[in-house]
This record gives sequence, structure tokens and C-alpha cells, in this order.
Amino acid sequence: MVKSRKPCPLLSPRVAAVSFGLLAALAIGQAAFAQSASMPAPAAPAALDRVKILAAPNVFGDFSTYRVRSDLYRLPTAERKGMSAEVMAVVDRHKDKVIVDLYLARGLSSKDDFFMRVHGTDLAAVQKFMIDFRATRFGVFCEATENLVGVTKALNYITPDKSKDLNAGLSSASYTGDAPRYAIVVPIKKSADWWNLSAEQRLKEIETHTHPTLQYLVNVKRKLYHSTGLADTDFITYFETNDLGAFNNLMISLASVPENKYHTRWGAPTLLGTIQTVDSVVNALTTTN
Amino acid sequence: MVKSRKPCPLLSPRVAAVSFGLLAALAIGQAAFAQSASMPAPAAPAALDRVKILAAPNVFGDFSTYRVRSDLYRLPTAERKGMSAEVMAVVDRHKDKVIVDLYLARGLSSKDDFFMRVHGTDLAAVQKFMIDFRATRFGVFCEATENLVGVTKALNYITPDKSKDLNAGLSSASYTGDAPRYAIVVPIKKSADWWNLSAEQRLKEIETHTHPTLQYLVNVKRKLYHSTGLADTDFITYFETNDLGAFNNLMISLASVPENKYHTRWGAPTLLGTIQTVDSVVNALTTTN
Amino acid sequence: MVKSRKPCPLLSPRVAAVSFGLLAALAIGQAAFAQSASMPAPAAPAALDRVKILAAPNVFGDFSTYRVRSDLYRLPTAERKGMSAEVMAVVDRHKDKVIVDLYLARGLSSKDDFFMRVHGTDLAAVQKFMIDFRATRFGVFCEATENLVGVTKALNYITPDKSKDLNAGLSSASYTGDAPRYAIVVPIKKSADWWNLSAEQRLKEIETHTHPTLQYLVNVKRKLYHSTGLADTDFITYFETNDLGAFNNLMISLASVPENKYHTRWGAPTLLGTIQTVDSVVNALTTTN
Amino acid sequence: MVKSRKPCPLLSPRVAAVSFGLLAALAIGQAAFAQSASMPAPAAPAALDRVKILAAPNVFGDFSTYRVRSDLYRLPTAERKGMSAEVMAVVDRHKDKVIVDLYLARGLSSKDDFFMRVHGTDLAAVQKFMIDFRATRFGVFCEATENLVGVTKALNYITPDKSKDLNAGLSSASYTGDAPRYAIVVPIKKSADWWNLSAEQRLKEIETHTHPTLQYLVNVKRKLYHSTGLADTDFITYFETNDLGAFNNLMISLASVPENKYHTRWGAPTLLGTIQTVDSVVNALTTTN
Amino acid sequence: MVKSRKPCPLLSPRVAAVSFGLLAALAIGQAAFAQSASMPAPAAPAALDRVKILAAPNVFGDFSTYRVRSDLYRLPTAERKGMSAEVMAVVDRHKDKVIVDLYLARGLSSKDDFFMRVHGTDLAAVQKFMIDFRATRFGVFCEATENLVGVTKALNYITPDKSKDLNAGLSSASYTGDAPRYAIVVPIKKSADWWNLSAEQRLKEIETHTHPTLQYLVNVKRKLYHSTGLADTDFITYFETNDLGAFNNLMISLASVPENKYHTRWGAPTLLGTIQTVDSVVNALTTTN
Repeated sequence: MVKSRKPCPLLSPRVAAVSFGLLAALAIGQAAFAQSASMPAPAAPAALDRVKILAAPNVFGDFSTYRVRSDLYRLPTAERKGMSAEVMAVVDRHKDKVIVDLYLARGLSSKDDFFMRVHGTDLAAVQKFMIDFRATRFGVFCEATENLVGVTKALNYITPDKSKDLNAGLSSASYTGDAPRYAIVVPIKKSADWWNLSAEQRLKEIETHTHPTLQYLVNVKRKLYHSTGLADTDFITYFETNDLGAFNNLMISLASVPENKYHTRWGAPTLLGTIQTVDSVVNALTTTN
Repeated sequence: MVKSRKPCPLLSPRVAAVSFGLLAALAIGQAAFAQSASMPAPAAPAALDRVKILAAPNVFGDFSTYRVRSDLYRLPTAERKGMSAEVMAVVDRHKDKVIVDLYLARGLSSKDDFFMRVHGTDLAAVQKFMIDFRATRFGVFCEATENLVGVTKALNYITPDKSKDLNAGLSSASYTGDAPRYAIVVPIKKSADWWNLSAEQRLKEIETHTHPTLQYLVNVKRKLYHSTGLADTDFITYFETNDLGAFNNLMISLASVPENKYHTRWGAPTLLGTIQTVDSVVNALTTTN
Repeated sequence: MVKSRKPCPLLSPRVAAVSFGLLAALAIGQAAFAQSASMPAPAAPAALDRVKILAAPNVFGDFSTYRVRSDLYRLPTAERKGMSAEVMAVVDRHKDKVIVDLYLARGLSSKDDFFMRVHGTDLAAVQKFMIDFRATRFGVFCEATENLVGVTKALNYITPDKSKDLNAGLSSASYTGDAPRYAIVVPIKKSADWWNLSAEQRLKEIETHTHPTLQYLVNVKRKLYHSTGLADTDFITYFETNDLGAFNNLMISLASVPENKYHTRWGAPTLLGTIQTVDSVVNALTTTN
Repeated sequence: MVKSRKPCPLLSPRVAAVSFGLLAALAIGQAAFAQSASMPAPAAPAALDRVKILAAPNVFGDFSTYRVRSDLYRLPTAERKGMSAEVMAVVDRHKDKVIVDLYLARGLSSKDDFFMRVHGTDLAAVQKFMIDFRATRFGVFCEATENLVGVTKALNYITPDKSKDLNAGLSSASYTGDAPRYAIVVPIKKSADWWNLSAEQRLKEIETHTHPTLQYLVNVKRKLYHSTGLADTDFITYFETNDLGAFNNLMISLASVPENKYHTRWGAPTLLGTIQTVDSVVNALTTTN
Repeated sequence: MVKSRKPCPLLSPRVAAVSFGLLAALAIGQAAFAQSASMPAPAAPAALDRVKILAAPNVFGDFSTYRVRSDLYRLPTAERKGMSAEVMAVVDRHKDKVIVDLYLARGLSSKDDFFMRVHGTDLAAVQKFMIDFRATRFGVFCEATENLVGVTKALNYITPDKSKDLNAGLSSASYTGDAPRYAIVVPIKKSADWWNLSAEQRLKEIETHTHPTLQYLVNVKRKLYHSTGLADTDFITYFETNDLGAFNNLMISLASVPENKYHTRWGAPTLLGTIQTVDSVVNALTTTN
């Protein structure tokens, strides 16, 4: 069993390396995103380039939520101590294939203790990491409660061609808030009526949806994954922010446009967690008083 | 492990320190609330000011429900004895960041044994408390069954500007009943049709909703949290009363106005519990015959 | 631990002491009910008056359902033997505050093994009993699966004033069947459209609902509890009968009137159990071959 | 503990003793059914007459589904060996009151391992059997996952009076296939709109429903139970067949008539199992490699 | 207990032996499928002919999903080592009656760890395999979470007779991608409105549904099972692909036609797994760090 305890270099500057992205069909040019990322690619030679992966299309995003089984807490403290290092070693071993983000949800979000986002261009390689994670001493106590796979794509609607002014509006502002401490994941499914609209009608709805969100570009980051057929949802929307009040207002804006009438799933679950290193998430969930 | 057994000064006068608040979009001026609170701020120097926190906007309210795992009861009695003191010590340790209320739900409410409301201006600090609570000897036996986060805001609809007479009506009466022994929590989610109404239409609906509730200001206290995007609900409505018959009538009044046609979630779960000290809740759930 | 094994005097003549009541908004004068009760008040000096409590308004009815954890059956037989006596002692200890009815559901009703109805005028006292019940050696093996609180009220619709003839019809017949062996509990929730009808429209619907039910007064007893805001239901309807075929026909009659179009919950769960003493319910669930 | 291992004479010729019945409101004269039963009444003097019970009205049918707890498989093989004999002894002990059918569902149907159908004219006696079954060494490892009670009735719609030709059509054919190896149970619930149709309208719908089903009389047996108010369903439809393709076509026919628009529950769960003796079901679920 | 560890010859060339099939009512002539299969029938004399079975009508497809109980991981490593060989031996023992495919879902799909597809012409024989599988040392730790049975049929709609051009379109292209690594299973249920359309109307809808899918014949394989009455779904649609992006686009196409308005179930669950040998699935789930 791997027990390396040295901090994983990929993960320590994690808070700064937050992803940039697009709200469902509300998107900013990807080059702009990559430029605004303040963190250089990690030094480890074989590791994936985080900035690139987070801005590229055709990347899988695998979101999973977990509950820690309570019998974990019957283990002696000493046995639980090394668990986070073991998980970090697994993350490190797969760093040439996947980028792993953990979020602490306990006390904030429904019934789950933490959730995970794993990016990779080969979904089978993502699964290999997931299998190895679940085979750790911590992983065997983790009960999966939800698992949604999505894939990134190039822009659909608010492109320079189709919607010039809005596209410019999206590009004219970028996140200027403090490093986000919170991530929110909201799965979205749309009705058959939505999918049966013409492309023009859907563009019009998305434009109406985009307008009120421009003002939140400065304090909420967004990223969009497409999931139709890959999970029981059409989209996975991912947000990072340090201003949950602004985020709440953004979501009310998105609820207040006609597009919302086409949603058959919005959340269920809504995941709310704090952005933390793998180390701190596992420690928070394996330490007792 | 902290085992201090001395009563937590913040908590003992709890029954008197009930919160004041607003029903979803049915609100009274906050100054009035603060004035009517009969309890002075607790003596402990670093503790949050309960009266202030309960009246302020931009405060997070974190509601969570728990079921006690039955294997707790296989522990020897002696081992269960100190559990409430340990929880109280954790509450005390975080008193500069969060205010913690516990409610005993066993035998009253769905499948849960107790629920918790935690207030704080920094949600990450609220989570830190939650992590520490779950790490207590009692906490590791608590299975989270629901967790909803909301945030307080200034008034939306029934303001002096927008709805002068109703605002005056709300301010003209205040709770005069006995100290409430019961708390009820009702999550509310509204349809896309609601959110797509104009602000004027929503104001009109809320006015119709407010009228029949004026008479219950004297026997039901109310507080409102906004949750869109933070949880799978739009509002968390919180009530305290000593007169459950009056509360039942208030809820029938709220069911009997057109606004109710826009609800897609009302309860599910409805939480009903008795307002008790941390001490008494933990003792009630850890003591056997 | 209390281990008194003497039969609880309150409970032994239970079958005769069945409650009388009203179907949701289908009500008979309460005096008539009280008169038709064949059992005198129990001799124990401090005990609540069962006949009075079952006929009075403003009484809480607390319905809870339980599943027995299977690890109970790994206990040695001897240890399980005294369990019913312990429960009976707890019931006896609270008899001045609550009236407790148990029903054996195993093999008849959904996934639950038994359900309980507790009446009391002070809900906090009802909870105290529930806490003590769950603290018994049997109680710690009981997993709560549902818990609904309601309150009795004076008649709403079919009063002598509002609906003279139907009210007379309701009073002209009373239960003449054999002592009921079965109880059925059906939670009912009504839509926003129902609650937005005028009082006159609702009266008309309830009259249409009442007509076909008159013929079942002789073989089905009924009692109604109001739950709006106290649980995720508007009403708890409770029935006792010895003729399940007649009951099935009554329920088809109630399904066949327009009022049924306003129901958003009817059952879910429908609870069906046999009326038994506390003793026999606990014994049936703690004895193995 | 009863440990008789001799085969229960009631059960061994079970496959031939399949029930005859009626599809919801699609019924054949009961005499015809009784005649076509190829098995004589069992020899045991006190046992219920299977043929009679399966053709009579006012008989309760109690359907329950179970999942075997996995800790059963940690018991030593020797301890699991006698389990089926013990269950058979319990069935035998109650044979004067109930008729018990078991079906093996593992690997075929949702999450359940087996289901059970118990007939009796006194539901309390049915429950007594259920209690005794659950008290066996096998029964304590059985987790009930669903339990639906229904009652048989005389024909409602397709009677010689109301629908002469269809009634004749129903009587003109009977099951001629191989002994059925499969049973399917489908709970059906109808909307308030259905129940508010006039009797004439419902008759018309049932006639339309009956026509396309006539051709399946030869290869699918059917039996109907009424459940309104006794469970969260209106009907329990029970089928036996050896030709699942024909059964699938019958069900498509039933989906393709307007009556289907009135269904609010169809299945959920649909139970599919093989018809087996008590012995073989219990053995299949208690034997390991 | 069988402990043969030699690889099962049926399974090793599995990836090449992927099934060909039809999307719900979107079908290609079966002869063409059989021809395009690149794998010869396995050498083992008694084994079913995989190519034939996968192309034939009247074959049962039994889909089941499983979660591995976490107490498996408390077993000593040595004890878990032989588990995959034991499962393979069971598969081998039944190879004259069933064809077994396993898929690794952990980390990709909802809450399940793996799923299974079993084909056979006799469903009782399929169940016998399922019983034996669950009786293995691995099987007793597998908790069934879903189980759906369907049956293959000859073409319904896009036949040479009814829809000549589309039928030709379907036949003109076949899968040319890399060996599929992913399988997706999507249960589909249609509304009463769908089933009440005339055959002509349904044909028209299916034609509209078929058009946009032609382009995906080259990179997504499809197979259709009919389930009405056999499970709580009407169809089980099964896909294999190595190009999940193309698959996502295919599913969006299928969402964007009017037929989609008739769906009451689409997924729930959507199963996504990697196609693997029995050996590798069981090893992945029984090995720890």
C-alpha cells in the first residue's frame, strides 16, 4: 500500500488554479480564459496541463459524490492518519492522465460528505483513477451517491457569428473577485419541448438568458459540460465563487427567464462545497475529536 | 477530547432568545425585531451577538437534519453520558463565528431525530463547526438526511416604498405569546412561471399572501432564508410558536392564496421539532431506559 | 431499567375502546360518538379519559410507523422476552398525558412492521413519551419510517348550519358492526387549486363527497386530523372496521367524486394494520420460531 | 424451532395448480376456471381448497416482496440447510387458513429476491401466517420491500347482462399452453378522472380494453384483486404464463387503448418471477457455491 | 466451491464480439449484422453461438446492476483473489444456455459498480445462471440495484415494406470505428398517448426519428429489447461505441424529434460502463491498494 505523505505539488496551489468556464450555453472565448489563469503549469514533467485541459473541448468531466461510511470512525486514529497521503499518492500516480479536484460538502450540501471532479481526455483513464481511488483505505469507506459524466464542447449559441454583441459582452469582463472558496454543481435537464425548438428559437432563448448574467462575470466563474445520453441529465453546470450572495442573485436571474420553463431538472442534487486540497478534504473527514 | 460539562452560557437562556423573522417575502422591519428581543447579548466576550445576527441581512442559515444510528445504543451507558458535554464544548469553541440551535424532532417529524440551524456570516466558518460537530463521539453516530443552506436578505416586496399600508400592518403587531416551544422549517420552491412574472405581478401576489397572515403576528414568529442555487429549494421558511393550532391556521391561509399555485416544493420535508438546549437534545437521544 | 410485567389496565380492553371519528370533512356530532362508546373510562386514577380525548377538538394525533431492525433477532430469546412489558410500563408511566395505540402492520402494509397513534393535548408531552418509548430495549431496534402530526378540530363543512340535511344523515346512523379488528390510515394532501376555491365551492364538493358515504357509517368508523404545516400532508384520515370489503367500497366512493381531482397525495403510505394491544404487537415482533 | 424436513404435500404439485383469474375487469366465468383446473384438492384434511379459493370472491390476496439480507450468507452452510424445511412447516401449519405461493424473482425483477402471494378469507389469519413466516430462521433475514393487499370480487363490467358478446368471447376460450413457469404482478392505480367517469363510460372503455385481449386467453392466465384504500394501488393484476412473448404482446395491447390514459400507476414495481415450490425458492436463496 | 482459475475461452476475445443491434425501432436487416461480426463462433462445443444469439429475435436480454457491499473489502486479500476465477467458472458452466457480458460502471455511472447483460432463449435458464452467480463468494457481496428484462423482436417500423428508403439507408452503412470500449444502457418508457397513436402515426414519428441517426451508424452500435409488462419500462436500448462525443450527439438528435415528447422514462438510470471481461471487472472491484 502506498503511504507517501509528501504533499502533491499539483494540488497545493490549487485555490489559485480555479477553472474558468461557461455557463450552459453562455460562453466566453476560451483563449481569454487561458490567459486569465494566474497559475503556471505544474513542474512535474508528466502531469497534464491544468490550464489547457480546463479550457479545451472534448474533455470529459466526471462528477461524483460520496458519503463516508460511519464505521470508518471506529478505526483507531492511527490507522486513519495516513489515509489522505495514500489518496494523494493515487492522484499523483494518475497525474499524466487526469486532473482531480475534491470539494468538502459535509455540513453544506444535502447528504454528501464530499464530491469530486475529474478531468481527462480519455474516459477509460478517468475510470482507472476512480477504481484506484476507491481501492484506497479511505476509498473503501466511501459510498458513491451520484455520478455524472459530461464532456466539454466548443460554443453552441453565443458565438461571434450568431450573437456578436453578446459574445463581445461576455469577453469584455472577467473574474476579478477573491480566490473562490466555494464550488457549486447544478445538473440541468431540458424537456422534449426545448429540444424540439428550432435552432433560432433556442438561440433567442439563450440570448435572453445571457443578458442578465453579464454582470456576474466578475464574481462567478462558470464551466459547462454536456451530458445527454452519458448521464440522466443534459448539462452539468459548474460554478466557483467567493461571493455566494452574488451567486444566489445570478441563479435567480437564470430562473427568471423563459428558458427556465423548459427545465425538467435543475439541481437534484445541487452540490455546494468548499474548494480544498485533497489533503484537507480527506483529513476533515477522517479526523475525530 | 474535550469533556467540559459546565453549561454553555450562550445556550441556557435560549428559549427566550428565539429568532424573529419574516415569512417568505412577508417581512417586518428588522429594527422592530431587534427591539422586541427580551434577551441581552450573552456575556462571553468573543461570542457572536445573537440578536444582531438574527436580524441582519447577508447571514447564512445552515439547516441540517440527522438520524441517530442505532448502534449508538449498543455503547455502554457510561460512554454515552459525556456526549452532550462534548457537543456543547464544540459549540462553545465556535461561538465567535457561529450561533447553533438544536431541535428535537424524534417522534414529531418524519424520520429524523433532530435538526440544527447554524448562523454565521462566513459559510466556510459554519462548515468548520459542522465538521467539528460530526467529529464528536455523538456526531459520528449522526447520519445527515438533509442539508439546506440559505442566506438572509433585506426586504423584497412589502417595503415602505412598494406596499406602504401592509408594511405598516406588519410593523404594528409583534409576538405576544408564551415563549415558543416549537420550531417548524418548511422549504419552498417556486415554479419557472413564478420567476417569469413581472416584479409588479409578484408584488401583487405577495400582498394577497400577506393580508391573511397579519393576524398571526402575535402568535407565530417567522424568518426567511433565500436559497436559489445554494440548495434544491428557493426559500427556507422558519417558524417558532407555542400555538400549533394558530400555526396550522396560518399555513392554511398561505395555502389558500393564488401564490400557492406557483409552488413546486412546500415542505418535503416539513420539519417539526421542539426548541431545546444542545444539552437536552443530545441527552434525549443518547439516554436509554 | 423498568421491567414490570403486569398487564397495563388501560390497554387490555382496548378492542372495545375504538375511536370514533370523522372522515376528512365528513363529520358526525361529537356527542353522538362519545355516547356510542361502549367502554367506561379506565379505573387508573391519573389516566386520560380515552372517550373524551377521542371526541375532543384541539387534541394532537401523532402517527408514526416503524420497521424493526433485523439485528434484534440475533439477541438471545430470553433477552427479547421482557421487551413488551418494558414498553407497557412506559405507556403506563405516561398515561396521564397520552393515550397510545399500537397496530401490527407486518405482512399487511408496505414495508413497516407496526405503527402507532398517540393522542395528547400537549404535543411536547407526546414527544416525551416517544423519546421514552424509543429508549426502551425494543425501541432502540425500531427504525422510524414515517411520522405525521395532526390536530383535531371542530367540524368545518357538514355542520347543522351549513348543511342541515347531510348533518342529520350523519347523525342518524352509527357503527353497529363487530368490534373492528383493522385500522387504516390514509394521509391526504390537496392541491393549491382546492385551497383557492371559495368556501361555498368547497362546501359543495364536500357535500357531494358525503352523500355516498352515509351508508358506510354502520361498518366503518372514521376520525380526521388536520396537518397543514405540521407535516407534509393536509389531513390524516383514520379508519377502523371489521369489514374490509365495505371499507374498500367506501374508498371507491370517495375516489369517484370531483373532490378527488384536487388530491395530490392519497396514502403514500396507506397504512393497514390490525388493532392489537401493546403487548401483543411487541410480542409478535420480538418472538422467533 | 420446527425442523421437519419432509416435503409439504400441499406444495409439491404446485406447478399444475396454477391459479385462474381475471384481468382487471376482464373476466371469465368462474365456474369455467374451476373446471379447467387439472389438479384435485390436496389430500390433507384440514387444508383449504385451492381451486375454490382461487375462484371465489371476497378472498384476500396478500402480495409481498422480499430481499434477503446478505449477512445470511455468512452463516455456516449447515445452518442454512434446514431453512426451507422450517418454512414449509410453517406453511403446513397454516394450511387450513391460507394458501401460500412463492416466486423466485432474483435475477429477473427489480431489486427483490422473491415474492409471495397468500390467499385467505380472513386477513387477520393471513397476517398470523406472515408473522410466523418472518419468525423463521429464514424469515428474519428477509427484508420486506413492498406489501400490497387486495380482495377478489365478482365481475364488474363484462357481465352477461352488461356486455353479452364480450362475456361470451371470454368464456369461449381457455388456457391451453404448457404449465406456466412465470408469474407477473402489476399494480394498477387509476386517476380521479377515471373514477369520475359514469359507469357507462367506464364500461365502454373496458370493452375497448377487452377486445384485443381475447386472443391471449389461450396462453396467459389472469387474476384480479381490488385494493382501493387497502394499499397505494387500486388493482393488483396477476398473470401466469409460459409464453413471455405473448404476455409482452398482451401488455402492449392493454397499453394501446384509451383506458391506459387513466393510469397513474402501472407496475412500479412490475414483479416477474418463476413459479416454484416453497422448497426450491428458499433453497435457491440460501445455498452458496 | 468451484475455484478453477483458467481463463474462460468464451470471454477472452470479447471486445471483438460486440453485439450489433437496433435502436428502438430503428433497425437494420439482421443478416447484415451477422455478416459484419468479425469474430467466429467460440470453439467450446456446447457454448451458445454468440453471433447468432445477438442477431436473433425471441432472445431474452436480462440487464442487472450491482453495487458491491463495502464489507467485501474487510476480507483478507487472499480470500478476494480467487473471486474472479470462481465467477468465470460459473459463466463457463452455463455457456450452453446463456451469454454473459459484464461492464465496469464504478466511477462512471450513478451509484452502481458494475452491470451485467445476460442473453438466453429460455428466461428460466437465465435465472438459473443469475442464482448461481449470486451464490459465488463475490456474488454474495453484490447488492442488486436494478434488474430489467427485455426480449428481442423482428423489425416493427423501418421495414423494406413500410419504409423502403430509410430501410435502405440503414443497410447502407455499418460500424467502422475502433472496437468499442464503452456500453450505454438507456431504458425507455412511452406514454399512453404514444401507444394510442395509430400505427401510421407511429411509423411517421419513427421515420422522423430515424433520419438524423443514419450518420451515426458508423460509430455507434445499437440493440433494442422490448420490455412492456416484463419490467417497468417499454424498451431497453443498448449502445456500444468508442466515440462518446458522437454518441452524445446521437442522443441529442434523438431528443430533438417529436417522438421524444411521448417519453415518460428516458434513462433513470442511464448506465455507462466500460466493456471488459468478467475477469477484469471482478478483479477491479475486489482488489485494494
